[in-house]
Amino acid sequence: MSPLTLAYGNLLAPALGPQGLASERLSGDLAQRFRGAHTAVEDARRAGELGFFDLPEEVETRRTVQEVADSFGQWFETMVVVGIGGSSLGARALADALLGLHWNLGSDEDRDHYPRLFFLENADPGSLRDLMDRVDPRRTLFNIVSKSGSTAETMAQFMVIEGLLSEVLDDEAVAGHLIFTTDPDSGVLRRLANERGIPALAVPPAVGGRFSVLSSVGLLPAAVTGVDLAALLDGAAAMTRRCEDPELIRNPAGLFATLLHAAHTEQGRSIHVLMPYADRLRALALWFQQLWAESLGKAVNRAGTRVESGPTPVAALGAVDQHSLLQLLMEGPRDKVVAFLRIRTPSHEVEIPRLYPEIAALSYLGGHELGALLEVERRATAEALRREGRPSMTFELERLDARGLGEFFMLMQIATVYAGALYGVDPLDQPGVELGKELTYGLLGREGYSAPELRDEDLGGYSV
Amino acid sequence: MSPLTLAYGNLLAPALGPQGLASERLSGDLAQRFRGAHTAVEDARRAGELGFFDLPEEVETRRTVQEVADSFGQWFETMVVVGIGGSSLGARALADALLGLHWNLGSDEDRDHYPRLFFLENADPGSLRDLMDRVDPRRTLFNIVSKSGSTAETMAQFMVIEGLLSEVLDDEAVAGHLIFTTDPDSGVLRRLANERGIPALAVPPAVGGRFSVLSSVGLLPAAVTGVDLAALLDGAAAMTRRCEDPELIRNPAGLFATLLHAAHTEQGRSIHVLMPYADRLRALALWFQQLWAESLGKAVNRAGTRVESGPTPVAALGAVDQHSLLQLLMEGPRDKVVAFLRIRTPSHEVEIPRLYPEIAALSYLGGHELGALLEVERRATAEALRREGRPSMTFELERLDARGLGEFFMLMQIATVYAGALYGVDPLDQPGVELGKELTYGLLGREGYSAPELRDEDLGGYSV
Repeated sequence: MSPLTLAYGNLLAPALGPQGLASERLSGDLAQRFRGAHTAVEDARRAGELGFFDLPEEVETRRTVQEVADSFGQWFETMVVVGIGGSSLGARALADALLGLHWNLGSDEDRDHYPRLFFLENADPGSLRDLMDRVDPRRTLFNIVSKSGSTAETMAQFMVIEGLLSEVLDDEAVAGHLIFTTDPDSGVLRRLANERGIPALAVPPAVGGRFSVLSSVGLLPAAVTGVDLAALLDGAAAMTRRCEDPELIRNPAGLFATLLHAAHTEQGRSIHVLMPYADRLRALALWFQQLWAESLGKAVNRAGTRVESGPTPVAALGAVDQHSLLQLLMEGPRDKVVAFLRIRTPSHEVEIPRLYPEIAALSYLGGHELGALLEVERRATAEALRREGRPSMTFELERLDARGLGEFFMLMQIATVYAGALYGVDPLDQPGVELGKELTYGLLGREGYSAPELRDEDLGGYSV
Repeated sequence: MSPLTLAYGNLLAPALGPQGLASERLSGDLAQRFRGAHTAVEDARRAGELGFFDLPEEVETRRTVQEVADSFGQWFETMVVVGIGGSSLGARALADALLGLHWNLGSDEDRDHYPRLFFLENADPGSLRDLMDRVDPRRTLFNIVSKSGSTAETMAQFMVIEGLLSEVLDDEAVAGHLIFTTDPDSGVLRRLANERGIPALAVPPAVGGRFSVLSSVGLLPAAVTGVDLAALLDGAAAMTRRCEDPELIRNPAGLFATLLHAAHTEQGRSIHVLMPYADRLRALALWFQQLWAESLGKAVNRAGTRVESGPTPVAALGAVDQHSLLQLLMEGPRDKVVAFLRIRTPSHEVEIPRLYPEIAALSYLGGHELGALLEVERRATAEALRREGRPSMTFELERLDARGLGEFFMLMQIATVYAGALYGVDPLDQPGVELGKELTYGLLGREGYSAPELRDEDLGGYSV
């Protein structure tokens, strides 16, 4: 049960040359800078502002979720999670990582009789129709996830789904196919849950959407499909403890945040690429992308100064993106840092057979494990970047399991609030999305919102 | 059958204010600059360097592919495309767009008896195992796609698959489950095809991987699953004709390339976001990401000067990424341009029922179509960006069909070679990926490559 590690030599001057950060700074100004961020975060945590820190310890929540999962899980053939952004990315990352990419294609036996699991994120009528063609609503549990209880896409889908359920079930039975995940006290979903006796799990008020993967938002879909919640949360708790250390070189989240912040603000490396080498982790990179972008991309800093700052996270996938983004990473502007993520022990081994010994372009592959080829490609990519003076770092998970994911989720969440302190911005708000919401409400005629004047996107002529 | 349109008013000063490009430049210096790029591209095309231009006219290829598809398609339950990068991204974009995201979950009847279609891209043993658990190799056709015939990931998977086939079939039968897509004359796959009588389609030598979606690389999986090749290629041909016009304001690919190039080089907008509003088009954005990144991210320009330039394309998805990237797009650095892509007429309509008339947070949604909500969100997002002085443009496809995709593929490919001319780089090469390949060969002990010395990624201690 070796813990998650982060190797960061390929960001430093000894390996990278003049493009690297001086390694003595790790015990000098960077350590100092990090100590300030660590203190700020620990203060905010003690003040109860950073609810995600407490989630691994919420034994009662874990028990409730498990009970709900055990009772519901055996009744339904299919579970559909209806949610968008932070209400789905974490759960989806967990599902892809631990259930694999073809879970829903398996038979009941293949799935150990756990339900099929779908995510309905977008207000895309094609997706809703495609999904409804594949599930039987009478044998499906719909988990409607919205902390506020008013997310337009999710509420619209909820209404459509309720309509479809009503066509095949009577009113009481409809309620039996729904479970909400929402605020414990306020919002429309909570009100409906109370009025109609619909079960509803709570998202703690101090836990924002993008920090909610270890709350009931992420735990319910995981539990329903048999994921070991205790291992997931134990991994997260272990990472929390590691990150209580204010010493930079012992704090993995601190190193991730401090090194990326320094590379960005001192060297102009504003694009932060997360590149796992496992197909099952593509969704995890998308989870990171939201966390990093929405938390750090801010117009105004804590002091009220207009800064318009924030790194751009890019979700990549190795080795696939060696055939897509790598050319740009190797030769383009020096505005990027790549964070690799590898699994030390693959869950499956597949040996490449020794076919075609007479063909040099094939024979060198024979006898290697496929997973070893993947790791060789990653090492070669990191080394090629290094030789070009382009920085990278590497996370290693011992294996792709719930515990390791718990560690990684918690590391990234803690790194994000450290980064907020380093950049001097509030990592918990997202004021920039409000204008679009208001315009949407106005365009749809919601009470209290006036219809905006919209210019045509072609300005009356600039169109081809 | 209205053609694809591009509205670009939201990039211009009249809509955007000082952050916009002056609209008179469209008939001034930008028109002039584009004319130079257009001439360079037309010259290269006439010189036979840009083979992708000719693909829509290759009637013989289309006929051959269709015949192969018609003869093979009825024999197999499942087709697996084995390829990576340009050997899969285009075919995958087509499949997701036209077959939907749950094609493989449908019954034979749901699929009109066309085969299930999987893509095996990565050298990930977990993915290979997951897939093999779900398909019966005796009823599966494996399409091995590698232009060079030596792509390590693809060749390794080919050898594993051949090994698995050999366990259940005799030698001759094994060959009957394979079809190659590769160079017409050279490479290992061509040699094996000739020696063993394995059918093999050709990728024309002047068509690079990332420009190959309209060659047999993209056409075969499409044809096998019933996609209308004639419509796809007709759409592409129509776009080619539109782009023969050297006048900027009449050339959609010219406008896309010229405006992004100007926004980048004059205004520092180096991040180009493609954001389709349809789940089925997420893969199309990944196809664009490879095309734009690998073609334009170059260390050295045509004149031999070291430039280390190139925009960073980001694949996004609306409305999902309104809950992920939008905060950064609205408030972060002014280094981005967003290109929206919308479908004018959704393939399905789903009305949101008028439930909960007494709850203001829900009632405004009732009576709207789900697709209209999605479009309102997109319009609101474009308008919110505009009000913040952040540029965008909008592609509109009449509907999500083969013809429209053909137009879009061709537009983007032509825009890419225009952009190559504008940036002054060769859009057809990818020299930056060679070092990683050589290191990989060396590490695996391939003949003629020496094993490289690799530093540890932790430099012997920089790890936590």
